Amino acid sequence: MISFKDAYQKVLDLSQDLGNELVSLEQAMGRILAEDIIADRNFPPFNRATKDGIAINYDAIEKGQTTFKIEGILAAGMPSQLLKNTANCIEIMTGAVVPSNADTVVMYEHIVIDDGWASLIKNPVQGQDIHLNGSDQKKGNLVLEKNSIISAAEIGVLAAVGKASVLVRTLPKVAIVSTGNELVEVDEIPLPHQIRKSNIHTLYSALSQEGIVPSKLHLPDEKDSIKNTLGNTLKVNNAVLLSGGVSKGKFDFIPQVMEELGVEKIFHGVFQRPGKPFWFGIQKETKTVVFSFPGNPVSTFANYNVYFKDWLKLSLGLPLQKIDVILKEAAEVKGDLTMLLRVKLGFNRGHLVVSLVKENGSGDLCSLVNTDGFIVLEPKSEPYEVGELVPFVPTRDLL
Amino acid sequence: MISFKDAYQKVLDLSQDLGNELVSLEQAMGRILAEDIIADRNFPPFNRATKDGIAINYDAIEKGQTTFKIEGILAAGMPSQLLKNTANCIEIMTGAVVPSNADTVVMYEHIVIDDGWASLIKNPVQGQDIHLNGSDQKKGNLVLEKNSIISAAEIGVLAAVGKASVLVRTLPKVAIVSTGNELVEVDEIPLPHQIRKSNIHTLYSALSQEGIVPSKLHLPDEKDSIKNTLGNTLKVNNAVLLSGGVSKGKFDFIPQVMEELGVEKIFHGVFQRPGKPFWFGIQKETKTVVFSFPGNPVSTFANYNVYFKDWLKLSLGLPLQKIDVILKEAAEVKGDLTMLLRVKLGFNRGHLVVSLVKENGSGDLCSLVNTDGFIVLEPKSEPYEVGELVPFVPTRDLL
Repeated sequence: MISFKDAYQKVLDLSQDLGNELVSLEQAMGRILAEDIIADRNFPPFNRATKDGIAINYDAIEKGQTTFKIEGILAAGMPSQLLKNTANCIEIMTGAVVPSNADTVVMYEHIVIDDGWASLIKNPVQGQDIHLNGSDQKKGNLVLEKNSIISAAEIGVLAAVGKASVLVRTLPKVAIVSTGNELVEVDEIPLPHQIRKSNIHTLYSALSQEGIVPSKLHLPDEKDSIKNTLGNTLKVNNAVLLSGGVSKGKFDFIPQVMEELGVEKIFHGVFQRPGKPFWFGIQKETKTVVFSFPGNPVSTFANYNVYFKDWLKLSLGLPLQKIDVILKEAAEVKGDLTMLLRVKLGFNRGHLVVSLVKENGSGDLCSLVNTDGFIVLEPKSEPYEVGELVPFVPTRDLL
Repeated sequence: MISFKDAYQKVLDLSQDLGNELVSLEQAMGRILAEDIIADRNFPPFNRATKDGIAINYDAIEKGQTTFKIEGILAAGMPSQLLKNTANCIEIMTGAVVPSNADTVVMYEHIVIDDGWASLIKNPVQGQDIHLNGSDQKKGNLVLEKNSIISAAEIGVLAAVGKASVLVRTLPKVAIVSTGNELVEVDEIPLPHQIRKSNIHTLYSALSQEGIVPSKLHLPDEKDSIKNTLGNTLKVNNAVLLSGGVSKGKFDFIPQVMEELGVEKIFHGVFQRPGKPFWFGIQKETKTVVFSFPGNPVSTFANYNVYFKDWLKLSLGLPLQKIDVILKEAAEVKGDLTMLLRVKLGFNRGHLVVSLVKENGSGDLCSLVNTDGFIVLEPKSEPYEVGELVPFVPTRDLL
């Protein structure tokens, strides 16, 4: 048994660099960028009209000219053209290249066009309505940093600089393993002493949100079978997540099997609730880490969110985001266990406020439906007070 | 031209009920539940041991008994058994059914076992370490409400009650359409007057995060071709998102083509920046809505996040989440335009604090990389002050 803080640190210490891989732009969403992205040309790459109207040379205005002969028309996608005469104008559309001997765009709303001539009805400001070549970014600038999370905004930038394929961090190969003879499949009618599998589905869907498609298996409470299957699973995965099989029961063979398979126990048992019988280890030979979570649904769910997700973030080169929230009600944590308490989050006038979820212990799966995350409270003699800041681990998308 | 507030309301007014569809549990993640979910049995369905140890009848303790003959062993997944003699005990594992004539579990840590007898080394409390039949939920209880977002926690509950397939809200069919002769593909080297497509990739990835796989097309700035293609697209989609082609340029045929296709214009032009030339309409016959966004990357991105995402939420039966954030710096909004300002969000001691992103107008795609969302500021004569609460629209996953 070790403290929560030590257990958490030991898990993070075994994060892994899984290397990089090339994916297509369409597959890059949500992945972690593994290369710096440089502007391959200026942003914008030319003096770009930002309004529809006419392009003129401001010198003519300064000479008192207010009516301009229209030389032609420039649409977006047309090669650049010069004004033949800088006392004339050219009609120009948003996105088109402004002639290099023009310097000002006047939008249609500020001119009157009659018989091939444009007359100003409002005086322009020199240089207006032109998005200047290189004014956002210069060619060679760093536009996206390595280790960025690729969201829709980053996809746009990657497209603009021509990255049809992108180097991203490789995701770990993960297996999820359920154990326990009492478990039946979702589409079965359980006998009175049986229950349906749920943890493995929870883990599968949680991992799928991280872009990971885990392999799934179920082990009976039978030692030889566990050993054979786990041996192979350890070889082909970077992380194995087990649910159940780690308490002190006669049929909980996992810790013993792990030892026989050369998986070094890092710890077994953490001073926390829920999730106390958590077993964590690493197979030195393969560097595969094993998260063996207690089988109670809330225990597995809490440990996945608190330990595994930060292990994953570190393994992908991401910083760990530490978020504090404000207690809406007092909470008492006595004894020697760090408490992971289920809370509901409210956005209250720019404040993150949490209230405790009514629950019935670590077997109470349904309480997780009302839960937005866990607050992590160390035991202390005085109660945590209303308004106090406490660390928060989200368990669903909240913002 | 209409106000931002009116435009926003008109978009919401045309949200659509797209009906429901059945998906497998594995495909249900992130979807919106379209049925109430009822517990098909009690949670837990039997008196369930929550520790490994022995099950006893507390009467024996009350009679002063401290040593118990072990009758046998009960593992999880074994049918229920009775104590043959309530003065005896039975070894029991976590998850197993507690005999109906036992009422207390004593964990291994609190007993000594010797030659078929278990002796207490700590007095138990009657009823301890049993997760009582139906104590979390009774059969027939509502465990998940219609219109819930299905996250990993909900997946676990759906699995537990045997929902191998789940009724969810149908997602809209969406087409995304780019226009503009200046655009080339991501893997092409643009000529000096050309730029690569980026908006369509941004929209594609943003929609993919909502579980929508949009169809993609590109229209040249040529009227007949636009009309043919759009006509078909309107028939087979619930929403069409266009980028570019709605300003006042000579080659911006979209509004005219829309009219010819029987798409009723709801509005064209909103008193907002960026995204002012936004065109919105509906084809009455098909009920397909058309979001025609201005082509500047920031305009398209802002309007997608501000208008389309809430249209989508309402169409899926979700409530609109209104979040206010705290200004870290003053902001001035004069004139008659509602400003959508790019901001970076910080989690500061339980407070959501935003600072303005340095940017160079609505063409400045790269500024979106530093942007976590937009704040929506109505024009007013006094500046918005430090510490003031303002509405926030996130543009990436933040919590």
